[in-house]
Amino acid sequence: MPASEPAETKFRRVALIGRYASPGIAEPLAQLAAFLARRGHAVVLEAETAAYTPLPGYPTALAEELGERADVAVVVGGDGTMLSIARLLARFDVPMIGVNQGRLGFLTDIPLATMEEALAGILGGRYVEERRWLLQATIRRQDGIDGAAIALNDVVASRGAQGGMIDLAVEINGVFVYAMRADGLIVATPTGSTAYALSAQGPIVHPQVPAILLVPVAPHALTNRPIAIADTSAITVTLLRGKDAGVHCDGQAHFPLGEGDAVAIRRAAHPARFLHPEDHDHFAMLRRKLHWGETPEQLRPGT
Amino acid sequence: MPASEPAETKFRRVALIGRYASPGIAEPLAQLAAFLARRGHAVVLEAETAAYTPLPGYPTALAEELGERADVAVVVGGDGTMLSIARLLARFDVPMIGVNQGRLGFLTDIPLATMEEALAGILGGRYVEERRWLLQATIRRQDGIDGAAIALNDVVASRGAQGGMIDLAVEINGVFVYAMRADGLIVATPTGSTAYALSAQGPIVHPQVPAILLVPVAPHALTNRPIAIADTSAITVTLLRGKDAGVHCDGQAHFPLGEGDAVAIRRAAHPARFLHPEDHDHFAMLRRKLHWGETPEQLRPGT
Amino acid sequence: MPASEPAETKFRRVALIGRYASPGIAEPLAQLAAFLARRGHAVVLEAETAAYTPLPGYPTALAEELGERADVAVVVGGDGTMLSIARLLARFDVPMIGVNQGRLGFLTDIPLATMEEALAGILGGRYVEERRWLLQATIRRQDGIDGAAIALNDVVASRGAQGGMIDLAVEINGVFVYAMRADGLIVATPTGSTAYALSAQGPIVHPQVPAILLVPVAPHALTNRPIAIADTSAITVTLLRGKDAGVHCDGQAHFPLGEGDAVAIRRAAHPARFLHPEDHDHFAMLRRKLHWGETPEQLRPGT
Amino acid sequence: MPASEPAETKFRRVALIGRYASPGIAEPLAQLAAFLARRGHAVVLEAETAAYTPLPGYPTALAEELGERADVAVVVGGDGTMLSIARLLARFDVPMIGVNQGRLGFLTDIPLATMEEALAGILGGRYVEERRWLLQATIRRQDGIDGAAIALNDVVASRGAQGGMIDLAVEINGVFVYAMRADGLIVATPTGSTAYALSAQGPIVHPQVPAILLVPVAPHALTNRPIAIADTSAITVTLLRGKDAGVHCDGQAHFPLGEGDAVAIRRAAHPARFLHPEDHDHFAMLRRKLHWGETPEQLRPGT
Repeated sequence: MPASEPAETKFRRVALIGRYASPGIAEPLAQLAAFLARRGHAVVLEAETAAYTPLPGYPTALAEELGERADVAVVVGGDGTMLSIARLLARFDVPMIGVNQGRLGFLTDIPLATMEEALAGILGGRYVEERRWLLQATIRRQDGIDGAAIALNDVVASRGAQGGMIDLAVEINGVFVYAMRADGLIVATPTGSTAYALSAQGPIVHPQVPAILLVPVAPHALTNRPIAIADTSAITVTLLRGKDAGVHCDGQAHFPLGEGDAVAIRRAAHPARFLHPEDHDHFAMLRRKLHWGETPEQLRPGT
Repeated sequence: MPASEPAETKFRRVALIGRYASPGIAEPLAQLAAFLARRGHAVVLEAETAAYTPLPGYPTALAEELGERADVAVVVGGDGTMLSIARLLARFDVPMIGVNQGRLGFLTDIPLATMEEALAGILGGRYVEERRWLLQATIRRQDGIDGAAIALNDVVASRGAQGGMIDLAVEINGVFVYAMRADGLIVATPTGSTAYALSAQGPIVHPQVPAILLVPVAPHALTNRPIAIADTSAITVTLLRGKDAGVHCDGQAHFPLGEGDAVAIRRAAHPARFLHPEDHDHFAMLRRKLHWGETPEQLRPGT
Repeated sequence: MPASEPAETKFRRVALIGRYASPGIAEPLAQLAAFLARRGHAVVLEAETAAYTPLPGYPTALAEELGERADVAVVVGGDGTMLSIARLLARFDVPMIGVNQGRLGFLTDIPLATMEEALAGILGGRYVEERRWLLQATIRRQDGIDGAAIALNDVVASRGAQGGMIDLAVEINGVFVYAMRADGLIVATPTGSTAYALSAQGPIVHPQVPAILLVPVAPHALTNRPIAIADTSAITVTLLRGKDAGVHCDGQAHFPLGEGDAVAIRRAAHPARFLHPEDHDHFAMLRRKLHWGETPEQLRPGT
Repeated sequence: MPASEPAETKFRRVALIGRYASPGIAEPLAQLAAFLARRGHAVVLEAETAAYTPLPGYPTALAEELGERADVAVVVGGDGTMLSIARLLARFDVPMIGVNQGRLGFLTDIPLATMEEALAGILGGRYVEERRWLLQATIRRQDGIDGAAIALNDVVASRGAQGGMIDLAVEINGVFVYAMRADGLIVATPTGSTAYALSAQGPIVHPQVPAILLVPVAPHALTNRPIAIADTSAITVTLLRGKDAGVHCDGQAHFPLGEGDAVAIRRAAHPARFLHPEDHDHFAMLRRKLHWGETPEQLRPGT
């Protein structure tokens, strides 16, 4: 394979990121680095990945530097790894490619077994790009702003360990919408619609739909249902009553939420960019992951 | 009130439409016509309304002529009346105002008791306009196209009277998405998200979200869930197996669906235009109709 | 294998029943008959089965005579076949054994591949017996009783082909419980809780729980939820409003339901008796059919 | 009213219990005590109630002594108060009567406004008695049993404040049933079926049905559904994976749950006994609390 060809692409510099502390990640990472180097790419290893899985011979860079140091990032791991990387890289406008170690994820859709072929295609320019919006969450306490985070899946205001429901008030664009008693409220992107929100009876939202989902978890009132609103909306969720509550971004960044505290949520300034093989089909992925039938014979398991 | 003032507005000619064969509709219609005439509007009565409820002294026009004959239409009735009128008027670009005879509807949001005040405001230029997209359904049989209809709420492919489930295949933009066994599949607009689709566990979708909902009714597979897709999508629902099935548009236009037949669904060419009083609040309406709590004290009925 | 041994069991006379008009049923039926005859059982073929699939050399009997002519019935087919046979045989107190041609069913739990071994065990006395209650449905019109049927899964009062919801009133033990607007109401046994009722959001009810389920299909009111009541209850479902409605027993027996008509439902006088291999495990079957996880690793398809 | 009459009833000694620290409880309690004394009952005030709301002139007794000191207990408060009292009194076989300060509860069904008339009836022998089973929860850690509690509504194994799902394994009667990933699992009595379990999509179970409900909260697998099993079942829920998890009995007694720890749940030895006015109607109460329609006109809020 001629090394000169891909080096001329816009993806000359490739960052490699692997699930931290994951047994078995070293081998595919090394294989991937060698493959990319052979094809003339400049490979840089994300520093935290390198700390867990050193790859001698390749330079390393902090995640925050990858915007400067890489034209594209290849993430090897599961959707959880991709979530944490996407939150870091979105603002740098670095497109991401997901390689899955185990069963395929929604965001990490390239199997380890065929990664070289898939990457050759994508890095050679044969890809579809998908932009996924993120949410920006800001914690507001009585005495001012106290923390912020980005989420690709969801921002969740949730009860604590004591098991009692909490009371929340929701405002959209400054107008009171409702008060609810529930275990929590999930504010999700279309990306997050197939994550926690799906478990809480939320709908599946195609990434092309510019919406934000509000999905209550175990709401006291039976008429509290999932709601989809425009993704330009400004949402404020205030804790009216409840001990030990918290705000969770992608289940990875956590903030305590006291009575009177609020979390303000808006679409983040920058979308995450994902590159997929040319034959990428969102519904084929859903079909596979949700075991949807292809034909009537497959419709029911066993009748 | 000076008759000259509203006559200069862009709503000089007002069409009046009342629920057909509705006892008690004559009085409010007559009152409304007199009120509008007093304010200098040219009032025209929709012909079918006039057939059930003649209002001597006012000209009549067929619904199909209202695009030519009226600048705005006032509909007195319930949401069902508005659904049938909106399907007729949408393509003529005539804005509609809904006055409700009974309890307030989602589309008919002005109470009879205060209709004069509300209409004076709207016709005087103090209103918010809302555009609601409709769906265009086309029935495709083996030997060609056989029928079409418009829907403001939903197009439903549904089992017949024999009570057995039907098998459907869904394609989006020409790509197979899934096959399902179910009582039926609801393809709904955001407007329809609070109608039949809500009963079938669909989410509430704000009218500003450019989405179309696919909501299965009693699906055999527990993983078949409501899905929201871009409202630019072309959807085809094919009956794979099932007797006595049909397609229903807003529950008002009906087509039989045989095995191998399909219904193709897209966003219609023209949106319906609704005028609301200036203080219109979509969520306040939902709160009232769904009995959502305003305050924590109202959250639970009686614990 | 000594033919004399099983002939002394209480299952000396075995009826054979096969799915009607099912391609491929002849071979397993013939094999089964020969196997049973070799073991000294008197084999009788159900007449309708014989009409579709003649087995020369074996006597036949009408289903209604099997109570007299057989000690046990072996049904080869799917759950649908078993439903129709169980409704016929329950009152004769003949225990049933289900062999499944395709994927295993809830009622037909013995795979074709291992049927000889399984039947040898059961007919040799190594089995667990399960009694499943049926429902007796009686159609009551203004001018008297007009039809009755038995159901093992469910009695469903349901809308017709026109797609509009129907209004139903439900009484339990002569006391009004609620009026609902819905596509229909499923009255199900625990056996039926994994059939249509499950699609309509009903709970799974273990066969040992002496309950009857009331599960609304797509109810207009969001607070109408599945209800489990004592299986000694007398339930009356009256059609208040709706055209073209019907009552369906196991999706196999159908009755029209006019406004004012009612269906009265009670537990039937006789339970169906099913024999299973000794290692029968109801939850293992659910786990397999509903793809429940066995271990945490299986919990999620691919994250 | 002749004081001698009720004194001869089997409810001669009446315990009074009021919601602790509830503003406005003093007056109805005093009124009730005077009313009962006038009718010849021996009134004893529960000690904790007396600590918050002293009623001079009446003896007090610890809750644990009420089995010895009272023939019946009148509880003034809400369902939360009744839950905590019922857990204490069930084993002493003292029947309970619930008077509600606010909106009527499921367990506290006598309004304050008419309590004297209702109590005169019940204490005079005109009542229906209802027995509600409780659950006994036992915490099992690697090194033995570590805590136990009683629940009238539910025993919940639940995630902690960090917001991540937990993995649970469920055994019934010593046999593995499934592993699930979820926010938690609610094990509920029929009484609890209208509490937290209802918010998590569980069915309503009539108190006469001898069942225990297993209702997952936001389960990862879409096929994990509410299950009803016989109330004689022994259930074990083991935490496979998850930090910060806990077990909650009626939301009032709490235990931490570490990985490998389990909670064993069975029906408690003694049911709680509730006395209701003769015209008590369980479904009328549900209808009122869940806003079910009485007539078709009430079926829908405003179409």
